Amino acid sequence: MHENLTLLTDFYELTMMQGYYKNNTNERVIFDVFYRTNPSGSGYAICAGLEQAIQYIKELNFNYDDISYLRSLNIFDEDFLHYLAGFHFSGDIYGIPEGTVVFPMEPLVKVIAPIMEAQLVETALLNIINHQSLIATKASRVCYAAQGDAVMEFGLRRAQGPDAGTLGARAAVIGGCAGTSNVLCAQKFDIPALGTHAHSWIMSFPDELTAFRIYADLYPNNTTLLVDTYDTLRSGVPHAIQVFQELRDAGKMPVKYGIRLDSGDLAYLSKKARKMLDDAGFPDAGICASSDLDEYLIDSLKTQKAAIDSWGVGTNLITSKDCPAFGGVYKLAAIEKDGKFIPKIKLSENQWKITNPGNKTVYRIYDKESGKIKADIIALEYEKFDENETLMIFDPISTWKKTYLDPGTYTVRELLVPIFKNGTCVYESPSVREIKDYCANELNTLWDETRRLVNPHDVYVDLSQELYDLKYSILDSMNTRNPK
Amino acid sequence: MHENLTLLTDFYELTMMQGYYKNNTNERVIFDVFYRTNPSGSGYAICAGLEQAIQYIKELNFNYDDISYLRSLNIFDEDFLHYLAGFHFSGDIYGIPEGTVVFPMEPLVKVIAPIMEAQLVETALLNIINHQSLIATKASRVCYAAQGDAVMEFGLRRAQGPDAGTLGARAAVIGGCAGTSNVLCAQKFDIPALGTHAHSWIMSFPDELTAFRIYADLYPNNTTLLVDTYDTLRSGVPHAIQVFQELRDAGKMPVKYGIRLDSGDLAYLSKKARKMLDDAGFPDAGICASSDLDEYLIDSLKTQKAAIDSWGVGTNLITSKDCPAFGGVYKLAAIEKDGKFIPKIKLSENQWKITNPGNKTVYRIYDKESGKIKADIIALEYEKFDENETLMIFDPISTWKKTYLDPGTYTVRELLVPIFKNGTCVYESPSVREIKDYCANELNTLWDETRRLVNPHDVYVDLSQELYDLKYSILDSMNTRNPK
Repeated sequence: MHENLTLLTDFYELTMMQGYYKNNTNERVIFDVFYRTNPSGSGYAICAGLEQAIQYIKELNFNYDDISYLRSLNIFDEDFLHYLAGFHFSGDIYGIPEGTVVFPMEPLVKVIAPIMEAQLVETALLNIINHQSLIATKASRVCYAAQGDAVMEFGLRRAQGPDAGTLGARAAVIGGCAGTSNVLCAQKFDIPALGTHAHSWIMSFPDELTAFRIYADLYPNNTTLLVDTYDTLRSGVPHAIQVFQELRDAGKMPVKYGIRLDSGDLAYLSKKARKMLDDAGFPDAGICASSDLDEYLIDSLKTQKAAIDSWGVGTNLITSKDCPAFGGVYKLAAIEKDGKFIPKIKLSENQWKITNPGNKTVYRIYDKESGKIKADIIALEYEKFDENETLMIFDPISTWKKTYLDPGTYTVRELLVPIFKNGTCVYESPSVREIKDYCANELNTLWDETRRLVNPHDVYVDLSQELYDLKYSILDSMNTRNPK
Repeated sequence: MHENLTLLTDFYELTMMQGYYKNNTNERVIFDVFYRTNPSGSGYAICAGLEQAIQYIKELNFNYDDISYLRSLNIFDEDFLHYLAGFHFSGDIYGIPEGTVVFPMEPLVKVIAPIMEAQLVETALLNIINHQSLIATKASRVCYAAQGDAVMEFGLRRAQGPDAGTLGARAAVIGGCAGTSNVLCAQKFDIPALGTHAHSWIMSFPDELTAFRIYADLYPNNTTLLVDTYDTLRSGVPHAIQVFQELRDAGKMPVKYGIRLDSGDLAYLSKKARKMLDDAGFPDAGICASSDLDEYLIDSLKTQKAAIDSWGVGTNLITSKDCPAFGGVYKLAAIEKDGKFIPKIKLSENQWKITNPGNKTVYRIYDKESGKIKADIIALEYEKFDENETLMIFDPISTWKKTYLDPGTYTVRELLVPIFKNGTCVYESPSVREIKDYCANELNTLWDETRRLVNPHDVYVDLSQELYDLKYSILDSMNTRNPK
């Protein structure tokens, strides 16, 4: 995604921009990016994509071709096109760092800017954040199921286009994958490129044994042989063992070696292959499995004690197959009038779909002893919480459900950090390896009950008393049963 | 996707390439791209992505940074890196034109090239063809459900990254969509950019009526008002009617005008809104609906006689939510030895997963009278079928199921056409609008029973007698029950 993405926006952002322009409406506004439901039945999500979102904002610029194209549509006036030609982003952006564990309703990104600018960036911000958060979350689930085994991202051929393969693999590594088969991603983001050979390698030689021998000779540091081209247990594994024996006899044992299973009953085949390798004196030979894996299948194979120690995961991870979209939305929270932000609400028939108004931030409350997350509080941006005072938190729908946290038993951390100030980027993105390490620590702040794959425990996301009061005072004033 | 995509490949393609290079193995081979199951339970698929695949092949070139990066991995030798630095594609490619209706097991793309070249291009070809074929197929289903109403692609914000949004929208238009909200896609591929305004437009004005008035004044040619920000039937529709009345009174009736529903019970709301518009004297006001639509929901709304005449479809189309990956694979079919292609087969426990060997092509047999598809025949590339002779076709698994077609009752068309010859592109991609029109004609060659959304009738894809005989003679000779 290196081309100019300025026109990567919904058409209505531009028609609305022109509307604001011609109406001389360009007050500063606040928009929040948030989502309502964790993907794939997860108890949490991992936010990702901020680095690409920053790059997008920095490079926003309508070039000559863009202006000519918009002019050709005969819907935009010259004065507005002239404004676009000089456009750059001048606002403030706050964001939750990539790799952070997040929950529904929390602002992941907050844009404070003149409405024309804030409106333009909606679509691309959502596109980038939704995609990478989706895949990072999915990867964290797959890696959780693999219980510490290496998980390799192998999905490029089934990804939804080149970016989905490359940025998806980036997100997968943030979520916990050891590396990717995608060389472009490995190059761009300095992460390990992984893989060995395909069935076509075996088929291009007169027989399997010859193909294995030549491969082992070529790659003496990592000799992983794909054993299922003809018959796994009667041909592939015996031939692999024969080659390993020849290498040992020649004093050329590879540092890392083993086999890869890519079809069939992985539980049965891996146990049989393990025994054959052990009996032949190769207990340290690895067994890698691939073949339509996802977190549930890996979990099942672990339960069945399959003898697999690394996993190649393709389609189901790179597309987040059971839930291929992250439902991030971009909602207006406030409009500035006379130097003051007036909070705004978008109504809905569903109480939990009603947006939270005002200029907000997110505080995370940790249990001081264990370091685990107690709850998150969405608050107004000026509110502070003193760790030396009793903290009362309450459910924003079932408000009678209250919890009191004693002074000194909890710590508080603000999640949103400044990314842009007056159009200038004030944030330096960490490397993907750093984000991956940070994310691993983040996942450790979740209780096991929240990490489990099915029916996880929900983490409390509460509103501060001030935000709650503000929200319901606006709702009351809207008197929606009898609109004028 | 305009950056250099040469490294958009699986790492193992490069390790295998080096293996072939060092082993002096560079025979010409034949690889087929094909898939085994239609996505989303469809009775067919629409192939798409060829234009981007061509662009990728044309631009293949390891630049200085690519070579430096590969060198830094300490796994590739200097002589091989030197070879890569001079790499270009020198082979032949055949493809089925974009927008063609296709079926499982048919070669959509056939690559004939030295094995090092044919291996390198596997991943990117699959990535591009899989993605766009998936979305074009999904779009054709959504448009089928809409029964001729305009369907607008609105999914950019939920697409899996920028390319998925842009190339996905391209594929959606090929599959039948009238246009897209994605301005970048509209610009790049010269297709209509569509959209009006969002809830934030309404919320940024003191009240809904003011927001509607200003919008109508700005866009007098297409005034579609979003009516569900506060209350659809008690606020949105009455205010829209008031604005339409004011425009009529002022003699400024828009050419195209109407309302958009984006939440709630679309069947109920659309019928109520239709009546309100009709009663107010606006029977030609359009009603557009959006809100998590897919082919099944549109079909259900049609059955309920919802008063909706255009549809905005987002997430479920741009991600093909119920089936977010198209299972295209790339399998070795033959290897040249002494100037002659030796057919190859990849075995599998499942009979239908066994690949078809040899240098193949695909013939489509049409019923001469109706122009509908009778069957497809996968044949060896030199085989010809004479429309003036009786044609016997048979099921390749249940071989006793035979059909005889009388001379003069059918026509034959070869689907694969030359794309590259000796590394030079010999094919000019049509415009997206042309492909869209071609695809509409293609869909008309399907019987209604194959187009229906649920449990469609399968189209016969048979093997020619020669290909069948070849396949089974190879299988017999492999004698897999007792491998050596």
